[in-house]
Parts: sequence; structure tokens; C-alpha cells
Amino acid sequence: MTDRLLVIGADAAGMSAAHQALRTARARGRELQVVAVETTGHTSYSACGIPYWIAGDVAGPDRLVARTATEHRAAGIELRLHHEAVGLDLDGRRCEVRDLESGTTRWIGFDQVMIATGAAPVVPDWAIGVERVHPVKTLDDGATWIRLLAENPRTALVVGGGYIGVETAEGLARRGLSTTLVTRGTELMSSTLEPGTASAARRGLEQLGVRVVCGTRIDGLLTDSGAGVRAVCVDGGEYPADVLALGLGVTPRVDLARDAGLPLGGPAVRGALVPDATQQIIDGVWAAGDCTAVHDRLLGQPWFVPLGTHAVKCGRVAGTNIGGGRASFPGAVGTAITRAGEVEIARTGLMPSWASEQLGLRTVTTRLEATTTSGYMPQAAPMAIWVMAQADGGRLLGVQLSGGPGAAKRIDTAATALTCGLSVEEFAYLDLAYAPPFSPAWDPVQIACRVLAERGR
Amino acid sequence: MTDRLLVIGADAAGMSAAHQALRTARARGRELQVVAVETTGHTSYSACGIPYWIAGDVAGPDRLVARTATEHRAAGIELRLHHEAVGLDLDGRRCEVRDLESGTTRWIGFDQVMIATGAAPVVPDWAIGVERVHPVKTLDDGATWIRLLAENPRTALVVGGGYIGVETAEGLARRGLSTTLVTRGTELMSSTLEPGTASAARRGLEQLGVRVVCGTRIDGLLTDSGAGVRAVCVDGGEYPADVLALGLGVTPRVDLARDAGLPLGGPAVRGALVPDATQQIIDGVWAAGDCTAVHDRLLGQPWFVPLGTHAVKCGRVAGTNIGGGRASFPGAVGTAITRAGEVEIARTGLMPSWASEQLGLRTVTTRLEATTTSGYMPQAAPMAIWVMAQADGGRLLGVQLSGGPGAAKRIDTAATALTCGLSVEEFAYLDLAYAPPFSPAWDPVQIACRVLAERGR
Repeated sequence: MTDRLLVIGADAAGMSAAHQALRTARARGRELQVVAVETTGHTSYSACGIPYWIAGDVAGPDRLVARTATEHRAAGIELRLHHEAVGLDLDGRRCEVRDLESGTTRWIGFDQVMIATGAAPVVPDWAIGVERVHPVKTLDDGATWIRLLAENPRTALVVGGGYIGVETAEGLARRGLSTTLVTRGTELMSSTLEPGTASAARRGLEQLGVRVVCGTRIDGLLTDSGAGVRAVCVDGGEYPADVLALGLGVTPRVDLARDAGLPLGGPAVRGALVPDATQQIIDGVWAAGDCTAVHDRLLGQPWFVPLGTHAVKCGRVAGTNIGGGRASFPGAVGTAITRAGEVEIARTGLMPSWASEQLGLRTVTTRLEATTTSGYMPQAAPMAIWVMAQADGGRLLGVQLSGGPGAAKRIDTAATALTCGLSVEEFAYLDLAYAPPFSPAWDPVQIACRVLAERGR
Repeated sequence: MTDRLLVIGADAAGMSAAHQALRTARARGRELQVVAVETTGHTSYSACGIPYWIAGDVAGPDRLVARTATEHRAAGIELRLHHEAVGLDLDGRRCEVRDLESGTTRWIGFDQVMIATGAAPVVPDWAIGVERVHPVKTLDDGATWIRLLAENPRTALVVGGGYIGVETAEGLARRGLSTTLVTRGTELMSSTLEPGTASAARRGLEQLGVRVVCGTRIDGLLTDSGAGVRAVCVDGGEYPADVLALGLGVTPRVDLARDAGLPLGGPAVRGALVPDATQQIIDGVWAAGDCTAVHDRLLGQPWFVPLGTHAVKCGRVAGTNIGGGRASFPGAVGTAITRAGEVEIARTGLMPSWASEQLGLRTVTTRLEATTTSGYMPQAAPMAIWVMAQADGGRLLGVQLSGGPGAAKRIDTAATALTCGLSVEEFAYLDLAYAPPFSPAWDPVQIACRVLAERGR
């Protein structure tokens, strides 16, 4: 008898799971039918690439699609685009699916179900129904932005100081719009970046001409006669805005799961689904991607980190298990990277407050300035390094980097070291690659670790 | 009573040790006098930077000096330039030192001695006494090359396919010389690079216009009337050469140590000194840098790897111990990086033959092509990844990378993982940084690890 897997949501997590389930089942000689339903007309695209499409770096939406519907179908997946899962009957092992084009619904039976419904952008009340106000989340959002830019707007306002806000502000500024970014935070990305790294991100945007306004809330919008945004009211003043980008984060899409009676996480994970390490919620019900929390290896608890890199990894883990193999997701360590104009930014590990308040750890930190390569090379660019370690024993707990080309991707070494529980002393003596075009003889992160190691002696 | 440390050789290893010994002693309230003798007029310079000085990337020799004599003296080190240690009397705790300017010698007493005599370039018999034939090792060599280039030579020959040979060929080609590199190896750097990585290096040079001739020995030179090189005889043919760069590697400078009766390593480490993990040879006699072998963590034995990054680290370890602290060098894992024109190259870990012949391990390897960033970004460059793992259990054993900007420094993550003994499965799920300008959603090295992990299931 052939098992049937129903995949709800045909983006990164869902389709990683679908393909991996098929591959795994086939390798074991098991029959598996995979049906995937997707509300939009798109599959497996890079949401992270949309700010760069807006910026003009990417020719068009097709370039952002990792695997097309045709490719999924060629691999043997029965893919139904413009179909929405509207009801999940777990006892009956069936899902009610609406064909969004015809409006008809039907039930699809399954043996196993993969929930990959993703997340929805936060849209505040004041933004609803106003023209030229849009999030930057889906391919359709991207197309909307390309259309808006074709109308030659002159001023842009970006609301939100997280990754999408920063990347979108960069993109709009590079398209020549007079751009202002407004955030409630005391700095950009202030919940995950220590002040020095956050201010480096701000300087990166400011060097592009973006005005960055921190610690400020939007009171409301002024619209023109056509119900389109004209300006934003802030603290008694106003900023002109021919277009307004929403970068206020996302909330997990869990209505279907909640209505089916599945357990959800609490406010700490924004109510996301919390799968176990195999990505299972309950027997035969799997989930991954932006509708789920991911386990944080350092905090030892689930965390809502809606990133594509976790979606593809967790999706693959789910797929392996669905297909009859064995896999588990070992968890994340809080790694993130972006670019603000010419300034690269990256982080991994804990913030000081997380270490002290959630884990009860005493910590030491240091910050230093260095260059990305040997200082005498023409490509040498300034970079700043922030490192946090446990006061007792010197275990590396967090690293943040900012600077010119080549600064930020060094975070991977730190993420690996955090994962393995290395001390700052051990990190300082790792055999990292040195040649003048690539690094000083002591890697800058190693120098910072050395400073903390000396302090702990 | 004040202890006296004598440092023999005032470059990377020696001066790292000198400063660290002073710092460590002072922090413990101990008196330490440090005397350093150096045969040349230079201290603490980047030998690795000389090919880039030749290439025109570096304005002048001063830029390559990390710390000047004045800075060393300001830190309290008694530095004697143009002084050569000519005899070491270990029983008498004294060293005979010749003032190379006056020709006089005197004995300097010491309580501890740090041997940092470095390495000498290999100069074959046929090269001795021939004009316009030079190694690329010291600041004086660099100055010689700048002078030679001022005479507008048109053709250059580089002998040797190792790092210095490759980097010097790049530099000379970029200076506009018609450049040929000749190596005995079957490929560039063939003893440490698998064929795919090595051929990427060759293509990098060839794209710069360098002619690369592998598997060939130099039979002799043709000289002009002024005893200067004119051409090189190879396999019955000849290559024109207005200048000839020697990149045939280096041998540890251990005459002083040998004459003092200190034990030396065997041919496997080119007769280098083999310190213990604290960098001690015998009681009170320390060594680091290019005159020593470094411990290889994977091979579990000493290895001759004359790199600046090991010199500064091992020098620092020696200094800590000399100053009364405790430190040990945990060893290297064979990490190296360079650039051949536009092609970045890096390696870490074992070669297949080392794993099988020296460690008796069964291995599996894979090789794949990917891009440095998300494929749709304008800066996406091709990169190639080679990964080797242990057949049983999948422990990561070696990674090699080649490709465009951002490809090679990823080796640090692999070096860290090797050091920590991660499996390819564990590597594939590390929380590495993803954003479109920096990486695909699955880091390319993770994809290669995933392939090997799947194969091992």
C-alpha cells in the first residue's frame, strides 16, 4: 500500500521535506505519494532575495525561484498551486483544500502531513487599506514594489529596524529614493545586536544617505486624495513618504494547526509550532519553517527565528523521517548576517542579557578594531569584533562582527566554535587560514578571544 | 635577581615570544631582562607580504614591518640589529654574538634562550652567483626585486610551484612581465592539494597570462656576458628569463642549535627543531617559528609548516612559559590559503594518502561546484568544494576550496570543525550565516558534507 504525504505550503521548508521524503522512501524501496498544496502561484523561492530584487540586483522574480513547479512535478510531486488548506481533520487523516480559482473545496486524505505554512508579515492597523504601503515578504510583494518604483516615487519610508527593514532601506536608497527608516528600537536590530554592532549597521545605512530614526513610533499616516500614503506622522512631526515599506517582522501562520487542535508554543516563540528534534508535532504530523520555533542549542529552549537556512535544514530533517530514515535537527546558535550599504554585520550566540537572565551565567566581553586582511594590503578594510565569554572557564558565548568586505562571514567560524563549546583560549589557537589578502597573521576574532583569555588568567 | 632571556632572531616568533615573556613576567611581578639579537637590520616583518610588494600592492618595505626596532626598544627589549649568534654554550648559559658591522664578537650570558632563527630559502647550485636570480624571502630580497623591476625586464621565470612560487608569479605577471612558472610537481602545490584544487590554482595563474609548466626540472641556466640569467634550459628546450625567482621552499636554520648539541628532527620535518607543546627543547631552551616543526593534531606528529601564523602563535606560547605563565600550543590542522590571480585557494586537514598511509583510515571524498553567494546575486562567483571524510562514522578529515571572492576563507569553518572532530553530518547542520550577498541557504561546504553523510547512511 502506498503511503500518502500531504505537504501544506510549497516553499523552502515544505518542498525540502517533500523531496527528501521521496528520496529517502525510494532509497528504502518504499512507495510514497507526495501531494503539496500552495495558496500562491509560486514555489521554493528566496524571500530573503526580495530586498535585492527591489534594489535592482536581481533581474526578475524567476531568478529567485530555486525550483519551479515544473521541476517539482518532474521529481514526482503532485503540486497544486492556488490551493489553500482550510481545515485539518487529524482524526480522519484528511485535509479540506480550497481551489482558490474555482472556489470549490475537497478533502484530501493523508497518512502523514507536513505543515509548512510559513509566516505572515505584521501589518499594523494604520497601514491597512492604504495605497503604496506594502510589506517585503512574498514574490507578489516584490512585484508590487517593482511596479511602485516604476511610478518614480521620490521619498520612501521604511518602518522597522530588523533585517528586512535594513535591507529594504538599502535597496530603496540605492534605487535613488530619499529614504528614512523609523524604528521603535534604541538602535537597529537592538534586540539581537550589542550597541557597537548596531551602530555600525546604522552608519552603513547613513553612508548610503538613509536617515535612520530610532526610538520612535508611528502615530499615523497622512494620505493623498487617492487614499495613498503621503507622509508619516511621528512624534508630532512628519516624514514625507511616497511609498512605505513594512519591515515589522512576521508572525507564524498557525491558524490551521490551532484549529486542528495541535499544541502551540507560548508568547516567547510568538505562538509558533514547537516540533521535537525530528520535526514531529504529534504522530505523523510534521512541521518546519517559519511557522515553527527552532531549538536554540545555547539557550536550551525553542526560539522563533524565521530564517530560510533553518527552513531548508528542518524541512530536510522532517523529510528524512517521513521517508522512513532517521534524522534530527541539532538546533541553531543564533547566527545571522546582513549588509547595510557597504557595512557587513553578523552575529552568533547569546546577548549579555540572555546569558545572565536566562542562563544565570557571569560573562566578560571585549571589543576591538582590526582589519579584514593584513593592514598593508590595498583591500584591507576596518572591522570591529565583539566577543563575549563565560567569566568562569572562558567558554565562548557570543561573537558579533561588523566591517568591510570579508568581515562578516568570519562569523561561521565562531558559530562552529560555539556549537562545539570551545573556550576563548582554544579559539585563539585554532589553525585559521592566514595569507595577506585574506587575514592578518592573527585572525581578528582570535585577537579578541586572546584578550579575554588573558583577562581570565 | 633579574633573569635574562636571550632571543636569537627578531622576527615573528622571536619577538612574539619576547613581548609575551615581558608581559607575563611583569604581570607576575617578576623581573625579566630581554636581549634580542638579529643578523639583519629588520624586525617583525611580514615575509608573506613580499610577493605583494613585488606586485605593487604594497607601497614599500616599511608597510610590511609590524613592529619597528624603536617600538621593540620602547617596550623594554634590548635589541641588537646586525648581530649574529655564532655559538651557543648551553652548559655555560652563554651565547657568542658577532657584531656584523665591527666584526667583533662577545659572549652574552642568559638564563633562558629562545631560538627563532627561522628558515633559509633553498638555492640550487645552478643559481649560485648568477645575477638577477633571487629568492623571495626577506625584506632585502624584496628590495632586490624592486630594483630588478626598475630595470624593466620583459620576461620572468619562477621556479617552484608552492605558495611563494604561485604568489610571485602572480605578482610578476601583474607587473606586466611575460612570466613562466616551472615546477617539478605534477600540478601546482601537488603535495598538499588534491588535483581539482591544484588545477584551479593553475587556471588562476593562466588567466593572468602566466605559462605554467608542470613535471619539469631545470637542467641549467644560460647567462649573458655580464653573468646575468638570460634563459633557463628545460628538457632540451629553453625559456627566456630576464629575471628568475626562486620559490623552492625553505630549510630550517638550525646550525647554531645543532652545534650546541640540541636534538633535531628527522628528514620528515627537514631536520627542524621539535619543541614540546610548551615550545621547550630542553630545560630553559625554547624555540618557535620556521626553524621548528609544529605538531599536527590530525597526524599526531610534528610537521614542517613554515607559516607566519604558527610562528606568532608558538612564539606567544613560548613567551608565556618563559615569563612564568603556563601555555601550550595545541597544534595545527594543515590550514593554508592563497590566491592565484582571481582564484582563491584554501585547504585544511589531510590528503587522502596521508589518511590511508599514515593513519590507516578508509576515506570517502566528494567534489562539487556551487556559488559563493545566492546564485541570483550579482557577486555570485563559482566555487569548487572537495571534502574527505572517514568512511566509518563520517568524521570530517579534509576540505579544499577554490573559487571567486569569498570562497577560500570559508576554510576556517572547516578547520574549526576538524579540530573539534565533527562528522560530515554534524557539519551539514551547523548554524552558518545565510543571507543572499554572503551564501546560498545551504553553505556550499555543508552541501558537500551532506552528500557524504547521505552516502554513509
